[in-house]
Amino acid sequence: NLAFDPNDHSHRRKNPLTGEWVLVSPHRSKRPWQGQQEPPSTDTPPSHDPDCYLCAGNKRITGEVNPQYSSTFVFTNDFAAVQKESHKAPESTNKGLFVTQPVSGTARVICFSPDHSRSLPLLSIEELNAVVSCWQEQLTELKESCSWVQIFENKGAAMGCSNPHPHGQIWATDQIPTKAEKADKNLKAYFDEHGSNLLLDYVEEELASGERIVDANEDWVALVPYWACWPFETLLLPRKHIKHLDVLTEQQKENLSKILKATLSRYDNLFNCSFPYSMGWHGQPFDGKDNTHWQVHAHFYPPLLRSASVKKFMVGYEMLAEAQRDITPEQAAARLRECSTTHYLAK
Amino acid sequence: NLAFDPNDHSHRRKNPLTGEWVLVSPHRSKRPWQGQQEPPSTDTPPSHDPDCYLCAGNKRITGEVNPQYSSTFVFTNDFAAVQKESHKAPESTNKGLFVTQPVSGTARVICFSPDHSRSLPLLSIEELNAVVSCWQEQLTELKESCSWVQIFENKGAAMGCSNPHPHGQIWATDQIPTKAEKADKNLKAYFDEHGSNLLLDYVEEELASGERIVDANEDWVALVPYWACWPFETLLLPRKHIKHLDVLTEQQKENLSKILKATLSRYDNLFNCSFPYSMGWHGQPFDGKDNTHWQVHAHFYPPLLRSASVKKFMVGYEMLAEAQRDITPEQAAARLRECSTTHYLAK
Ligand SMILES: O=P(O)(O)O[C@H]1O[C@H](CO)[C@@H](O)[C@H](O)[C@H]1O
Ligand SMILES: O=P(O)(O)O[C@H]1O[C@H](CO)[C@@H](O)[C@H](O)[C@H]1O
Repeated sequence: NLAFDPNDHSHRRKNPLTGEWVLVSPHRSKRPWQGQQEPPSTDTPPSHDPDCYLCAGNKRITGEVNPQYSSTFVFTNDFAAVQKESHKAPESTNKGLFVTQPVSGTARVICFSPDHSRSLPLLSIEELNAVVSCWQEQLTELKESCSWVQIFENKGAAMGCSNPHPHGQIWATDQIPTKAEKADKNLKAYFDEHGSNLLLDYVEEELASGERIVDANEDWVALVPYWACWPFETLLLPRKHIKHLDVLTEQQKENLSKILKATLSRYDNLFNCSFPYSMGWHGQPFDGKDNTHWQVHAHFYPPLLRSASVKKFMVGYEMLAEAQRDITPEQAAARLRECSTTHYLAK
Repeated sequence: NLAFDPNDHSHRRKNPLTGEWVLVSPHRSKRPWQGQQEPPSTDTPPSHDPDCYLCAGNKRITGEVNPQYSSTFVFTNDFAAVQKESHKAPESTNKGLFVTQPVSGTARVICFSPDHSRSLPLLSIEELNAVVSCWQEQLTELKESCSWVQIFENKGAAMGCSNPHPHGQIWATDQIPTKAEKADKNLKAYFDEHGSNLLLDYVEEELASGERIVDANEDWVALVPYWACWPFETLLLPRKHIKHLDVLTEQQKENLSKILKATLSRYDNLFNCSFPYSMGWHGQPFDGKDNTHWQVHAHFYPPLLRSASVKKFMVGYEMLAEAQRDITPEQAAARLRECSTTHYLAK
């Protein structure tokens, strides 16, 4: 048994939100890459694209015409993954091997801006406030009929996004989805054991150490979590107890816009490209329970590893055994801190 | 509450091996795709590529020269994700928020054939027997020092594979990885509750229905599981009780080669391309326990959805909430059954 060096020795770290481990192989980042490269998104699209089905005034595949919107614009997904109608539950046959549950809900698209070329970090604080307000309005409406409202954004072709127009989605369901349920269970177990909120305890420890912090203001902290899977994964969370976005104060909203702009600008500056990611908000389920154990937070999962065109593949070992990463979360946080919070296109 | 039609209504299905759900949206497969396309792998590479670091007699990045091998060839990964040495466990700090475990083990590469152009379905049964024997030998050796031996293959650029030379990998560790541990827990719970083996009960039900079967012979069955996530995901498992590959009879080995050739040929024939996937074997952990609840099986996770160039992205909603699929497992099985078991290049 030799002395342990986290920057040199393979080890695993446990994610307390999922209960899962990630294998960390810091010594492996030197390996050469001869595989697939992503076409990096470095050129700026036009402000209006006549072929874009999300631009204001354009026609969608259904024939519907988008309004001449000037801020955010929300519509129901033309190919929604969940349907509104609820259907009778089929019977579960023997021994739990063929278990089905009906799911109902809705899927919506949120255009963040009428300007085709302006992703979140390129919006003004005022425009970002409008995005946060839009998320809040959606939550307030959908929590009446859905127990889980998943707000998310797929950004960039590498993340399956088929349109560069700045937009996110909301899929809201009557069932609490697998990963939300797992987070709920782990947050609750921690609260029951320690009498405190897991993410409030966590953010305090992180602020004290500073090692993994990327950005922080009076209300919010963006950091690379100790258990991050994706190379430059970040966790965005409040300093105070907030169960979900619908209850933010005006100041918390403004500070959320500010930290979003700062951290997402660092992302784009890291490899001088429009940094792809999937992001989403986790907040309390709307299941009528107290949920004091909940603390709202956003996960950012960006796939890029070495450059604008080389991503980390979560494949074989990761799909069959355990997530794996090459650089340590501490190294990733340091790299992000070195990047400017002023976007390279805004200079 | 309307009558439920699994081919038309959104629903979720539970995976008894992971305890997780998958959201099924069968009505969604009609949506258009304007996003990223994969460069399909349709042209046949040469039998020997002087630039390939896996071909016989070629030099690897370390300067080492591969032997003139004629069947399979195994070597330790030049950039192994796990190291041999074991390091002292760092202390876990307060409340389980910063938990680290040392991991030791080894990572190896297995070349399936010296012929650069011949992926598994293009090997003869005799050559496939050699691959199975190689997996067996590796298991027999590594189970002495490792509690989990993950045999897997990443095939195709879409699955992060950087070299078309037919090869797989083995990552073996002293720790049982997250997904293996979960399967172990669920198989054990089922065995304790029902007094029978989950996958033996399951395969019997599937054979009786036939709806999701892709291939079957005297010893093995390949099927699209009821809870499949990936569009054309398959599960390959034995009809009789077998804890891991190391204990196969000669006949079981031969029949395994046969079903591998049949099902993987169907995969390539589906879109007339070298079908990308990640695959891997799950068998009993080598932890000294009885493990009667285990049944060896292979998972095949292919990303393609609509054609040789359009894949399913497991992104936003899937990363944050729950896996989601468009076509039903029953439709996928029917599509695979329509494909020939004779490879399009062998005709
Ligand atoms: O080991 P390789 O082929 O270099 O790398 C590939 O497979 C590994 C194991 O699934 C993954 O961790 C890598 O992200 C992937 O690129
Ligand atoms: O809804 P979109 O943008 O058409 O589709 C994208 O996001 C969805 C939700 O994460 C995924 O299920 C799809 O695989 C992906 O292509």
